[in-house]
Amino acid sequence: MNYKAVKLVKRPETNIEPDNFSLVELETSEIRDGEILIKQTHMSLDPAMRGWMSAATDSYIAPVELGDIMRSSGVGEVVESKNDQFPVGAKVAGMFGWTEYLVSNGTGVSLMPPELPAEAILSVLALPGVTAYHGLMEIAKPKAGETLLVSGAAGSVGSIVGQIAKAEGLRVIGVAGSDEKCRWLTEELGFDAAINYKTADLETAVREAAPNGIDIYFENTGGPIQHAAFANMNTFGRIVVCGVISDYNSTTPAAGPSWVHVVKKRLSIQGFAMPDQFHRFGELSQKVGAYLMKGQIQYRSHVLEGLESAIEGINLLFTGANEGKLIVKL
Amino acid sequence: MNYKAVKLVKRPETNIEPDNFSLVELETSEIRDGEILIKQTHMSLDPAMRGWMSAATDSYIAPVELGDIMRSSGVGEVVESKNDQFPVGAKVAGMFGWTEYLVSNGTGVSLMPPELPAEAILSVLALPGVTAYHGLMEIAKPKAGETLLVSGAAGSVGSIVGQIAKAEGLRVIGVAGSDEKCRWLTEELGFDAAINYKTADLETAVREAAPNGIDIYFENTGGPIQHAAFANMNTFGRIVVCGVISDYNSTTPAAGPSWVHVVKKRLSIQGFAMPDQFHRFGELSQKVGAYLMKGQIQYRSHVLEGLESAIEGINLLFTGANEGKLIVKL
Repeated sequence: MNYKAVKLVKRPETNIEPDNFSLVELETSEIRDGEILIKQTHMSLDPAMRGWMSAATDSYIAPVELGDIMRSSGVGEVVESKNDQFPVGAKVAGMFGWTEYLVSNGTGVSLMPPELPAEAILSVLALPGVTAYHGLMEIAKPKAGETLLVSGAAGSVGSIVGQIAKAEGLRVIGVAGSDEKCRWLTEELGFDAAINYKTADLETAVREAAPNGIDIYFENTGGPIQHAAFANMNTFGRIVVCGVISDYNSTTPAAGPSWVHVVKKRLSIQGFAMPDQFHRFGELSQKVGAYLMKGQIQYRSHVLEGLESAIEGINLLFTGANEGKLIVKL
Repeated sequence: MNYKAVKLVKRPETNIEPDNFSLVELETSEIRDGEILIKQTHMSLDPAMRGWMSAATDSYIAPVELGDIMRSSGVGEVVESKNDQFPVGAKVAGMFGWTEYLVSNGTGVSLMPPELPAEAILSVLALPGVTAYHGLMEIAKPKAGETLLVSGAAGSVGSIVGQIAKAEGLRVIGVAGSDEKCRWLTEELGFDAAINYKTADLETAVREAAPNGIDIYFENTGGPIQHAAFANMNTFGRIVVCGVISDYNSTTPAAGPSWVHVVKKRLSIQGFAMPDQFHRFGELSQKVGAYLMKGQIQYRSHVLEGLESAIEGINLLFTGANEGKLIVKL
């Protein structure tokens, strides 16, 4: 059977361009014992892809090799099976790549509850959710009654961090870039407070929103909010650094806060990268799923149609024009 | 029996002045069941005392109250005992304060091997050693073959950090402020390399001394070495922040490094303060003692004579005029 896939053929210099990719037609091969054929139905587009497309630097994460199918997470259906764990008809998720079909031996493939919409899986259970869960629950280790500040709070990771924290009994303050996003955080997602970093006096706003100080700062963006957060951290506070988007493309990244507070307040600052946890994807995904099943996590998804739409559509992430989690329906 | 003690009666504004203290004469009371009378023979003077003399700020550590005996660690001998754990004649160590005698119920008092000189106890087993051990072994968790960079390497804490790390099989690079101190580190203490931060091009010097990058950076000083260390950290590197002396008295502390590396290299940065571990002093002290007994830790001590000598002598620490661990012999 013939199917389409998209390969990475050229690394982007600055922005991602259509000629970085090549649409190819491939043919499925017969599956062997232990293998399954997956028909992908939905795939996820994530900001992390920009990094995966670059040549390796700083040993951050293995890049997608030129000529390989572009990396992504996705949801699909098992259409042929010689593996008892994955019967025909099963709904599965994994790092499937930009392709309509793929053959797998099951490694890194997770069974999904059939009743769960693919949009929920990719918006919550996939990269955003496992990133949020790992960073918040396993690194920051929150306790009920503590106060969390999260930057990039309306983003796919930040919005889940805040909602898991609410479910765990924390006071949650989100930082986002528009009044509309701030309203979404407080009125729809149940955040206790939200700060528009484009218009607020950050240090005052953080102090007022966190009268008992901040126990956990979940950092997605970098920028001036970092300093306002630092100034309001409590003793033994934990800072989880998931991303500093504002600095990634700068040749002269902004200075960080002084370490005087690190000693005086015995702060811990921990950076992490999700690829280090890819082998635990299924386990982490189930943990996020528990919140989703209880109705504790809401999401918005923005769905494009057809594999080819990813080639231009990925840039919606970088212009900020997407309204919710960006997903391609195949 | 009459004895002398020194009380804190006035908080220093900038430098420590003799009128911050008052020499008083007290009388020992009869000990009750469970108590012991300790005759202190040696007491330790440490840079941390400057902080203990200040009013509480940033909830860092409880200050010494005005009118209380000045806080310090010391070594002494049990001269009366109604506590079976501490027989008369036993050598003991603890936070005894600036006093010739004290009554204790034994809490926080540790028995010391009689053959161990008081200088070794205060230079290695007391504050410097337990700080070095806790920061290095319990926070940074070194593995043989890793590379450690330590700032303030010729100081009481830094010199022990480096020597424990050598005993644990690490490559050790020290940063200090003179060629004489650098020679002491490499020729006497067995450091693999030493960098004089006053004369070296730091980033080049660190890169050359750490050809495989830095796994652990033990920070005692702050200043430009922080940036050179950061630039050479390995993936999953650990930074332990014990002190940033260069910034303590500044109203505008220097900016820290950008957090881009924190994510890309998944660094952890952990601040700590020894008073949080005072309840574990005995246990930690024994662990440092094991290195001392094996001859793996050398020390230099600078001994003053008589309780009153502490009042002026403490300033040797801040002018840097002491040659080795500053100790008062009573």
